[in-house]
Amino acid sequence: MHVVKEYRSFSADKLISIAPIAKQAYTEIVTAIGNMVGKINNSEKYINSVSPIKNGLINLLHDEYGWEKEKHLMALTGEGNTGSTNKRRKGSGGGIDVYKEFSQDEFSFRVGIEFETGNVASVHRSLNKLSLGEKNKELDLIVLVLPVFDLSYYLTDRVANYEEIERYFPLFEDRPFIAFGFDAEEYSPDFPIFVKGNDGNSKKK
Amino acid sequence: MHVVKEYRSFSADKLISIAPIAKQAYTEIVTAIGNMVGKINNSEKYINSVSPIKNGLINLLHDEYGWEKEKHLMALTGEGNTGSTNKRRKGSGGGIDVYKEFSQDEFSFRVGIEFETGNVASVHRSLNKLSLGEKNKELDLIVLVLPVFDLSYYLTDRVANYEEIERYFPLFEDRPFIAFGFDAEEYSPDFPIFVKGNDGNSKKK
Repeated sequence: MHVVKEYRSFSADKLISIAPIAKQAYTEIVTAIGNMVGKINNSEKYINSVSPIKNGLINLLHDEYGWEKEKHLMALTGEGNTGSTNKRRKGSGGGIDVYKEFSQDEFSFRVGIEFETGNVASVHRSLNKLSLGEKNKELDLIVLVLPVFDLSYYLTDRVANYEEIERYFPLFEDRPFIAFGFDAEEYSPDFPIFVKGNDGNSKKK
Repeated sequence: MHVVKEYRSFSADKLISIAPIAKQAYTEIVTAIGNMVGKINNSEKYINSVSPIKNGLINLLHDEYGWEKEKHLMALTGEGNTGSTNKRRKGSGGGIDVYKEFSQDEFSFRVGIEFETGNVASVHRSLNKLSLGEKNKELDLIVLVLPVFDLSYYLTDRVANYEEIERYFPLFEDRPFIAFGFDAEEYSPDFPIFVKGNDGNSKKK
């Protein structure tokens, strides 16, 4: 896959321009998106499951760059975030999909990514969850990754796409926020179909 | 029904304290909530449909106080907001549930209400939609109305409740924002059940 649309808030843009660890985080995400299989079966709309694509990206970030999966926010689970019993507190809505703490000298730089595979309402929840993490000083850069419209047409029905949410991005312009819209490299009715529960084919050879 | 939980941002609190038209808007909403039938059948969880309750409130605000239904935001439909053809632009997600423009001398005061009857992800969309309207200078006060947990237990399955979203309210603390959580006055297995498509019984006698 590859990034074809991008939104960068002013502070996010500044960060990745001047801070090496922010630039590194940015590069890891873009590289991982680029390493996902970009051949999409387009024989029918909604024919591919989006979950193997999501899992592919998450696994790449985890396996190759050491990103953590399902990071729970203290802002949503309560102070401390140590016990497992309070992790599923009412309204927590699960953890951040992927998270990594970078470090440079004695400083840390914490990045949270939500890879959206739900409907558009669910994207709003992802955006607000990331924002809350940033507001609560648990995240230093917040990132949304989702397919663009052209690709989403061949993915799970109603999966959100970049174009249907981008009008809301200005709400997050005062936070260090980046949104990536990705597309496939090639479409053909002859390519394998992404099937739910199978993410073995989600990395380029 | 009656309001049992409330969140008020600093600016919303100030507005309704010092501005007569803001106070009037506030009073109309609280009065309308208070005028909805507050007898809930509790013979089984999820037994009542939430839509007649929502429609009841919207109709009360519309019929008695002249609030407008389904107000489309220019921020989401594009400049001008005059043609009907562009009202359903990608990502608009429908209008604001209820809207009213109050006036005092030559000044206007525009209030938008979302009455949430979807799931929790849908509340995030409502909050962001209202926020975008305020950011775009189309709304001067934004209001979220939803049932509290105790009541939601007897409403449509998965309908959002006040408690599961309130941890996110601080995200909106810099906007003129109010959230109301309402509850029923009485519960009994003998009260009539709210059935979808029937809002004839949604006002107190």
